[in-house]
Amino acid sequence: MSGVDGAAPELAVSQWFNTGEPLTLAALRGRPVLLHAFQMLCPGCVAHGTPQTQRAYELFKATDLQVIGLHTVFEHHAAMTPVSLQAFIHEYRLTFPIGVDAAGDGTPLPVTMGRYAMQGTPTSILIGRSGRIVHHGFGQQSDMALGAMIAAELAGAQTYAAQA
Amino acid sequence: MSGVDGAAPELAVSQWFNTGEPLTLAALRGRPVLLHAFQMLCPGCVAHGTPQTQRAYELFKATDLQVIGLHTVFEHHAAMTPVSLQAFIHEYRLTFPIGVDAAGDGTPLPVTMGRYAMQGTPTSILIGRSGRIVHHGFGQQSDMALGAMIAAELAGAQTYAAQA
Amino acid sequence: MSGVDGAAPELAVSQWFNTGEPLTLAALRGRPVLLHAFQMLCPGCVAHGTPQTQRAYELFKATDLQVIGLHTVFEHHAAMTPVSLQAFIHEYRLTFPIGVDAAGDGTPLPVTMGRYAMQGTPTSILIGRSGRIVHHGFGQQSDMALGAMIAAELAGAQTYAAQA
Amino acid sequence: MSGVDGAAPELAVSQWFNTGEPLTLAALRGRPVLLHAFQMLCPGCVAHGTPQTQRAYELFKATDLQVIGLHTVFEHHAAMTPVSLQAFIHEYRLTFPIGVDAAGDGTPLPVTMGRYAMQGTPTSILIGRSGRIVHHGFGQQSDMALGAMIAAELAGAQTYAAQA
Repeated sequence: MSGVDGAAPELAVSQWFNTGEPLTLAALRGRPVLLHAFQMLCPGCVAHGTPQTQRAYELFKATDLQVIGLHTVFEHHAAMTPVSLQAFIHEYRLTFPIGVDAAGDGTPLPVTMGRYAMQGTPTSILIGRSGRIVHHGFGQQSDMALGAMIAAELAGAQTYAAQA
Repeated sequence: MSGVDGAAPELAVSQWFNTGEPLTLAALRGRPVLLHAFQMLCPGCVAHGTPQTQRAYELFKATDLQVIGLHTVFEHHAAMTPVSLQAFIHEYRLTFPIGVDAAGDGTPLPVTMGRYAMQGTPTSILIGRSGRIVHHGFGQQSDMALGAMIAAELAGAQTYAAQA
Repeated sequence: MSGVDGAAPELAVSQWFNTGEPLTLAALRGRPVLLHAFQMLCPGCVAHGTPQTQRAYELFKATDLQVIGLHTVFEHHAAMTPVSLQAFIHEYRLTFPIGVDAAGDGTPLPVTMGRYAMQGTPTSILIGRSGRIVHHGFGQQSDMALGAMIAAELAGAQTYAAQA
Repeated sequence: MSGVDGAAPELAVSQWFNTGEPLTLAALRGRPVLLHAFQMLCPGCVAHGTPQTQRAYELFKATDLQVIGLHTVFEHHAAMTPVSLQAFIHEYRLTFPIGVDAAGDGTPLPVTMGRYAMQGTPTSILIGRSGRIVHHGFGQQSDMALGAMIAAELAGAQTYAAQA
């Protein structure tokens, strides 16, 4: 779940939406990053994870947090093409940068999803200023816990709480 | 909004899901029909109208009500193809018959949507035993009112209530 | 759960709100009655059952359905007095008639609650035009099913569906 | 909204629940305090503010945040007595310390509510380690923003974000 130097693995993105230029974790080193992996036809993403990420994007707009969506298609590939994703982004009024996870070679799993050993979607990953993974959560996260984690990282705190 | 004889216009469907054979209003005459027009990337459909239709399908299973979904794509056509719809139906566990509204000729509006002069999606239409339109509702409907309308039609009542 | 003649037992009410004169099932015979038993400090009533009853009251206003709330206090008696109930009715903007179930003699269970052998709150009971109990539901009911049951009874149908 | 020294005004509480001994801000100086003012018959408190406070209590249990509920009855006084409050706390399974705001002298407003110039209920106030008010919010707050504010204060950060 981490690279040679213990850092969060780099993103492998084939196409970007909502950003003029490609984003890389290397270039973002020093800033916290909220990485939200989703599929546009995953009900738990559409109902919870993706709108939650939009809320985080808006709440922390004035901070140096970088929010990144990652379309990690690992099933129904023909149904969730970039053309469909673009309409999804438009209809759901998502405004944070979203990348299409690069197709895997000989595997239905896309590249970044594999690098992070994600279990499925939605997955929310918080990468700290140091470039290391602070939180890796699969499934529904609570808004309050996510807000606290991000704020603690922004403040440079070890963690917002001892509880898991 | 109605044919020459005052009846609900016939469906024009290019492809069916969740049914072994095509459905026609002509063949269903004598039975009430709940027709739910939606688009798989319409947030109001995904959050409210479509799961409501699934609930109606399950609640009235033992009656002779026929529930029909109609994928009335009038925007983002390349994003909401039958291939994408099929994955949507699978992921959202929809089990009622769903037809793809036939593409319009020289217009982005599909054929059945045009025949019924629908204003958008979601639209829920209740067709009575007589084949006439009993209710034509655009936007979010309340579960209680929809349940009452269907039950009144099943009972052969004029209407469940005087109120609109 | 029914009187000598098979009819729904009569109400025993010590005080009424939202109605100029006391209501009795005897006087309502011939009209369907939705009886909603609740306690003002029962979370499931406050979150679901009681606002649902208010919705039914508004939806079926033009019909001859009579909606009746019944405050069936069987615990925390000192905490849920008529004075507290009155403030609750005001704050939650309930406008249907609500009676206070008469205190039991030597038992914490109020009289009407005992007559109907209710299991707890919320309980929703639909009494048909004939005065007999059509539905007796404890716990959360779906809006769609409740709307259908009421509409079927209003239409004089046996039932809206064969399903339970 | 603050005392002579700029500190959050002291609490005036006539009765405590869920705590063996009375709490004072003076004794809590050095720890952040989340103060949630509510009324047991305020619909916005019951639906949002009070369960949100319970969630904060549970999320930050391992930190030195002190969560305090304050029953600030300013209307329907006879309906919301400590006896009724006690049943409310039991039924809604609230486990954080809750104080009854002391009755005002010649005013329906209780003492602490007056000292803080609260506009109504629910009100959520975050008091920093320094004893000063960090946030004073009337009405519905977002879980994410509240979580972030608390975490930032726990971390000793000035604020979690520049945005209001």
